[in-house]
Amino acid sequence: MTAQEKLINKNNEDKFICVGLDSDINKIPAHLKTSEYPILDFNKSIIDKTSNYAAAYKLNFAFYEKDGADGFDTLKSTIEHIPEDILIIADAKRGDIGNTSLMYANAVYDYLKCDSITIHPYMGTDSVLPFLERKDKINFILALTSNPGAFDFEKQKLQNGTFLFQQIINKVKEWNTYNNCGIVFGATKLDELKDNIDLFGDLFVLLPGVGAQGGSLPDVVKTFKMADRTKYLVNSSRGIIYKDQTKNFADSAQKEILNMNEEMKKILDQ
Amino acid sequence: MTAQEKLINKNNEDKFICVGLDSDINKIPAHLKTSEYPILDFNKSIIDKTSNYAAAYKLNFAFYEKDGADGFDTLKSTIEHIPEDILIIADAKRGDIGNTSLMYANAVYDYLKCDSITIHPYMGTDSVLPFLERKDKINFILALTSNPGAFDFEKQKLQNGTFLFQQIINKVKEWNTYNNCGIVFGATKLDELKDNIDLFGDLFVLLPGVGAQGGSLPDVVKTFKMADRTKYLVNSSRGIIYKDQTKNFADSAQKEILNMNEEMKKILDQ
Repeated sequence: MTAQEKLINKNNEDKFICVGLDSDINKIPAHLKTSEYPILDFNKSIIDKTSNYAAAYKLNFAFYEKDGADGFDTLKSTIEHIPEDILIIADAKRGDIGNTSLMYANAVYDYLKCDSITIHPYMGTDSVLPFLERKDKINFILALTSNPGAFDFEKQKLQNGTFLFQQIINKVKEWNTYNNCGIVFGATKLDELKDNIDLFGDLFVLLPGVGAQGGSLPDVVKTFKMADRTKYLVNSSRGIIYKDQTKNFADSAQKEILNMNEEMKKILDQ
Repeated sequence: MTAQEKLINKNNEDKFICVGLDSDINKIPAHLKTSEYPILDFNKSIIDKTSNYAAAYKLNFAFYEKDGADGFDTLKSTIEHIPEDILIIADAKRGDIGNTSLMYANAVYDYLKCDSITIHPYMGTDSVLPFLERKDKINFILALTSNPGAFDFEKQKLQNGTFLFQQIINKVKEWNTYNNCGIVFGATKLDELKDNIDLFGDLFVLLPGVGAQGGSLPDVVKTFKMADRTKYLVNSSRGIIYKDQTKNFADSAQKEILNMNEEMKKILDQ
């Protein structure tokens, strides 16, 4: 199944939540820490209890790389545990000159067998091309991120009057020949989403920043519904996986994603 | 020894060449391919023959990540083989929200014990902060890269009349409280270097793009000399490590870096 099919199928089932596996040894329940593979056990439990309700999983590569080769093995084993019909996003934020981006594409798409990646646009077209050549994948390019630093460069106005992040969205639409591009767009501020949703065109959209970072899930869903639009994912990491730090963590994660799905469904059914 | 001391010491010995270990199984000499650890053997031979003449080594992470956990082990073993007085740059081009950048800093500085990293500036101040807190490291932030895609965003003019890459250089100078910041500045076009060298202030500078990508080594050296400036590294990857694909590859690499050093010394001694 292509990445596009996986995402669209889940959206068609009213599933829009991407579970972020930012799994941290310092934050997982204490009873797991004595296991041989604590992070892998944690991830597997979360996946087992949430995969019927999630639209995607996003693996934050930094949380694994800090453990070196062992972390890479955990990443690979976690990916193998995710059911085949669910989109797997490598949240790796890569981007380099062409021959190097090609190697990153090999790492994420061939070695790790992910469906999707997050990409830094800064270095321009040739730095993104090796990813764009993967027709059956979804390449999410950073447009507007959900952190305070977005003001430093992303929200700088260019001489043509557009913000840098808008210029990037326009460029991503040019790159989207194979319908395999998406953008990352922080959902912390409703006005920004409303002001820009028409610019997104047919691109896939990955929305961080809902929950802990200030964005409202019902507001996002309403905005996409008003625009008669699906092909999007709302990411939630800490809000789901660390909802509960007891032995019931996976059940609590399940309950949380069920609550979110229900909250969304109310709006979608209106 | 701090990263700053390592770089400055080598510059003081008229050493400015950073050897890029973009080591690729498809490009190393045939006789190494039957070894158990071909890339590691290749890297060790290159290091053994060039470490007396190099100012730094730069490891292009993509070339290792494509082999997963094994690649990470090669990365670690290569780093352990580099003499202690030589700067090791993790060319990883990372950058994410604060808690995630912190994990990347842990991976590169604590797990792998590198001295330096390359960073994507796009997400702004808080995405760079966890790196800036490492006072004894050098954080090279992408300003102007050496690839054609630099035109897409890096060379966009902002409403204040500066190019985006210049805005970034100014911001990096603000970030440089601990004298642990540098910039990546592509040396493909001499005019660009001349036009901007005064803007660099006291930042360390890593210059890709010399050799195969079109930049001229004597031109770079002259420009820095005219500006009465050191604290820079000229990167050469393919031009050194793949100079020769026979059993003599390491001797040829040594000869190449010696030639480059001699070429530079002629200008420095003028």
